[in-house]
Amino acid sequence: MQALLNEILDQVRPLIGQGKVADYIPALADVPANQLGIAVYSNDGELYCAGDAHTPFSVQSISKVFSLVQAIEHSGEDIWQRLGHEPSGQPFNSLVQLEFERGKPRNPFINAGALVICDINQSRFAAPVLSMRDFVRRLAGNPEVAVDQRVAESEYQHRARNAAAAYLMQSFGNFHNDVEAVLRSYFSYCALRMSCVDLARAFCFLANDGFCKHSSQSILSARQSKQVNAIMATSGLYDEAGNFAYRVGLPGKSGVGGGIVAVVPGRFSVCVWSPELNAAGNSLAGIKALELLSERIGWSVF
Amino acid sequence: MQALLNEILDQVRPLIGQGKVADYIPALADVPANQLGIAVYSNDGELYCAGDAHTPFSVQSISKVFSLVQAIEHSGEDIWQRLGHEPSGQPFNSLVQLEFERGKPRNPFINAGALVICDINQSRFAAPVLSMRDFVRRLAGNPEVAVDQRVAESEYQHRARNAAAAYLMQSFGNFHNDVEAVLRSYFSYCALRMSCVDLARAFCFLANDGFCKHSSQSILSARQSKQVNAIMATSGLYDEAGNFAYRVGLPGKSGVGGGIVAVVPGRFSVCVWSPELNAAGNSLAGIKALELLSERIGWSVF
Amino acid sequence: MQALLNEILDQVRPLIGQGKVADYIPALADVPANQLGIAVYSNDGELYCAGDAHTPFSVQSISKVFSLVQAIEHSGEDIWQRLGHEPSGQPFNSLVQLEFERGKPRNPFINAGALVICDINQSRFAAPVLSMRDFVRRLAGNPEVAVDQRVAESEYQHRARNAAAAYLMQSFGNFHNDVEAVLRSYFSYCALRMSCVDLARAFCFLANDGFCKHSSQSILSARQSKQVNAIMATSGLYDEAGNFAYRVGLPGKSGVGGGIVAVVPGRFSVCVWSPELNAAGNSLAGIKALELLSERIGWSVF
Amino acid sequence: MQALLNEILDQVRPLIGQGKVADYIPALADVPANQLGIAVYSNDGELYCAGDAHTPFSVQSISKVFSLVQAIEHSGEDIWQRLGHEPSGQPFNSLVQLEFERGKPRNPFINAGALVICDINQSRFAAPVLSMRDFVRRLAGNPEVAVDQRVAESEYQHRARNAAAAYLMQSFGNFHNDVEAVLRSYFSYCALRMSCVDLARAFCFLANDGFCKHSSQSILSARQSKQVNAIMATSGLYDEAGNFAYRVGLPGKSGVGGGIVAVVPGRFSVCVWSPELNAAGNSLAGIKALELLSERIGWSVF
Repeated sequence: MQALLNEILDQVRPLIGQGKVADYIPALADVPANQLGIAVYSNDGELYCAGDAHTPFSVQSISKVFSLVQAIEHSGEDIWQRLGHEPSGQPFNSLVQLEFERGKPRNPFINAGALVICDINQSRFAAPVLSMRDFVRRLAGNPEVAVDQRVAESEYQHRARNAAAAYLMQSFGNFHNDVEAVLRSYFSYCALRMSCVDLARAFCFLANDGFCKHSSQSILSARQSKQVNAIMATSGLYDEAGNFAYRVGLPGKSGVGGGIVAVVPGRFSVCVWSPELNAAGNSLAGIKALELLSERIGWSVF
Repeated sequence: MQALLNEILDQVRPLIGQGKVADYIPALADVPANQLGIAVYSNDGELYCAGDAHTPFSVQSISKVFSLVQAIEHSGEDIWQRLGHEPSGQPFNSLVQLEFERGKPRNPFINAGALVICDINQSRFAAPVLSMRDFVRRLAGNPEVAVDQRVAESEYQHRARNAAAAYLMQSFGNFHNDVEAVLRSYFSYCALRMSCVDLARAFCFLANDGFCKHSSQSILSARQSKQVNAIMATSGLYDEAGNFAYRVGLPGKSGVGGGIVAVVPGRFSVCVWSPELNAAGNSLAGIKALELLSERIGWSVF
Repeated sequence: MQALLNEILDQVRPLIGQGKVADYIPALADVPANQLGIAVYSNDGELYCAGDAHTPFSVQSISKVFSLVQAIEHSGEDIWQRLGHEPSGQPFNSLVQLEFERGKPRNPFINAGALVICDINQSRFAAPVLSMRDFVRRLAGNPEVAVDQRVAESEYQHRARNAAAAYLMQSFGNFHNDVEAVLRSYFSYCALRMSCVDLARAFCFLANDGFCKHSSQSILSARQSKQVNAIMATSGLYDEAGNFAYRVGLPGKSGVGGGIVAVVPGRFSVCVWSPELNAAGNSLAGIKALELLSERIGWSVF
Repeated sequence: MQALLNEILDQVRPLIGQGKVADYIPALADVPANQLGIAVYSNDGELYCAGDAHTPFSVQSISKVFSLVQAIEHSGEDIWQRLGHEPSGQPFNSLVQLEFERGKPRNPFINAGALVICDINQSRFAAPVLSMRDFVRRLAGNPEVAVDQRVAESEYQHRARNAAAAYLMQSFGNFHNDVEAVLRSYFSYCALRMSCVDLARAFCFLANDGFCKHSSQSILSARQSKQVNAIMATSGLYDEAGNFAYRVGLPGKSGVGGGIVAVVPGRFSVCVWSPELNAAGNSLAGIKALELLSERIGWSVF
């Protein structure tokens, strides 16, 4: 596996230069484009990594999985009263569908859906950001995972479109807390800094029927774990979920920081990172690396 | 497995009466609602069935998989110039998305996408309907599979919405043959009559890396077979694909005749049939039966 | 008035070269771009004209007014069961709104609405195209007005988008005759060839409370006449109706042949023609000429 | 005229009970439904009124005309860089069109457009609400016109959908001031309390080529005045502008407080008020009263 990871990074490295680092906030635009890392964490506890696998980066939308898992832990199936688990077939930040469907977002991985999930968690926790930080530290087994305040603040300054989505949902009665407060929490979650190693470890329970070996904790039931994977498989990569299923064939979740996490149920979790994005907002080299990995191990869920 | 299938049918039978048989054409509305069958065909050639597994019914949209496979066999990756493989996030017959995306349908399982696939096949084959019929006979290992002309004609009389989609695509240059001729073919494919046993056998190659054991033929490559499964997993159940992934966790394809086919990669294909549909147009008892099967064998792809 | 018309044409002639002749069918693309004409027909029967006012051109969408008037004559207020009289706020050939509003077009001047009007007239007349031709000959007082068969045939060959709209309405139960037959009629009406003089005379009843002086016939009641003007004022210039009201301030109707007819209630009707169109599909020099006319006579309805 | 107004009120009074008072905020829901008033103010300074013509009510969206006029006074044609003057063809508070058209609202009378106008005025005035109040007092010739703070505050509490629109426009770069501050101003304008008499007087300049006789001031040029009337005619009654043109044939502007102002260019301005609304959000009895008035005086602009 170690040799394979090195080989894959060598193969995808030439793609660097063909994508575009997210530049809607300076804190993200500054990230050096030529970084590339991968980490695999197997169900029997082995860790393999290559490249910049230990460098922390901004997890961005990958945090939506953590929020969803927190919400399921506390509220279970009830959350589906307030959002769906259907793919959206629209760019990740479109308000059109949200208006037609009367403020009920399609799934927890489009921004509107993630905001509803944050609204649910905001009602639950006295200190939502601390709760999230501690939850993620535990999942990753790394007490140093932290929120990058500069990124969070900068995202908040550019909150217009997310604020529009939240207010639109409020107008339909599907948003219960103060919009500005939830946005603050949401951007803090997005601004968590984690490395490929952190993320591979943090997602390992989804490859292992909900059980996190290194913390010896059952995070979700086996059934819930499969359900989260199902939602990642149909909606995890913005408007490219179908293509990711077609090319890679694994449940996965991406972020505009350039990270992508994927899960091989029963075997391992993997995180790849390269900051340059394709037109759909997913890591260009990251998708290619996962495609090669899926081909080389002869495995997709399909 | 045999006992399990009997048990599952017993469990879902009480659902009959809670759905609604498709009634947009008389030929479908006439089908007795209380029929229920299931067939499992394993990769080692074993067949298990229960209930009305040998009764032929109208395959309807399940035929979209056959058309797609025919198109891939002949035209390979080229077909993706003309349609996508992303979930649509709209009811299966919406023209809105088609207009916004300039006549390029989201995937081959919404009606517009299936019409483009038929248009591709129409250009390839001198006698498209005969070619399809023979292809399906071969896949099912049943020389008696046939088109129900009454259903095909009746669907053609109700072609308005599909005609609108085809003409809209033609207006964007994405439809090459005579609209009426392609519609005739399309409705003939939908009007194929097959039983659960026929369909389980016909789909077995998708559980077996593209190889159809009973005909000793490689229908698709292993990679192509996974790709078709990926598209079924993200787009196979109209506007309920996400829910099917969430509840059942298997690639599948449904039809308004009440059939649903699903694939357990590496193990078996399965077809369940019950004519009453839920609000999303999928067999109500059929989805429940597959959910129970997936739970009982402790297996989903996720 | 005669001097004024000459002056206006001199002022707008420099605009020729800045627009674009409609080129979606060869028969329209062939029209020499440098033609320019205007005709004013007053309520007391005086005719003033300048430039190419006697040259016939393809009336195209201006015919939608004739169809509407025919439908009102026969069916009165009943027609509003099948379409609205609200502006559409969408490009003239969009299907999106039509689908959301379940097959009921917004007004009789978008293509879908005109098709419904033609469908209504198709049910009324044994020979719809002859009836229309004779009606328009009578309105214009010119027995030589005729359909350009070459244009009608060519439009029919490019019918895809209009066919899509008609079939979509049929799917909602709002289209009663054979789609292809109505399209044939519709394109024949659009292919009527008339000059500025013909059109100014044909529209004079709308400036005169419904009464056509030269034929001594009451075409519509005073109230109906005002209503047709109201619809022209809010919806007569595709997606530029608001701008036309803002700049010109008169009820009007344009066609992609480059003609625009406008009405000064109580005073006169006017037709201007110049084949080059602006981005919204309206005659570039034509709109400017009407704006100057409205300014110079110090008159708009507002 | 006086007799006519009495007669009209008698004719429409039976409609009371068939509409529905706006109830999205308590301050509006409390208004007694059975009030009905009308005032006509002629260009030669005569005032005619009937019913509750002196009772102040919440002007709501009628204030959008005042905001527009203020913006035109200061910024002239420049404002059309930031919004259009086309009818919208969508319910007045839809975000769909706003997103498709990249944050540029269709016209100044849908909420999004009015918010952009308020944003323009917010940049201009040190104390926007005071400036507006004084401007309206001057127009109405009534120094007691005031903002109802309770209504303004209550609207602010229900700001979700307008906040969504404002943030959406901000995300497209078409909103320059703090969203919350502009919303505060916007709701203050809507909460102005004026009577039919106040409003008829305040709108008289639009019937008189921009000149306000009682204050001896030219508010707009004759041309600008016609342009404002044109925008009212095509977009003044939410999604019912076409119907209002068809039935009444006058430029007008309505508010959910139940007021409707209309303009007979060259003759008079009129305001009618009755709190119960029809399904489109316009005063039910008010529209009928204006229809009767237009019929009885034999006058529409068309």
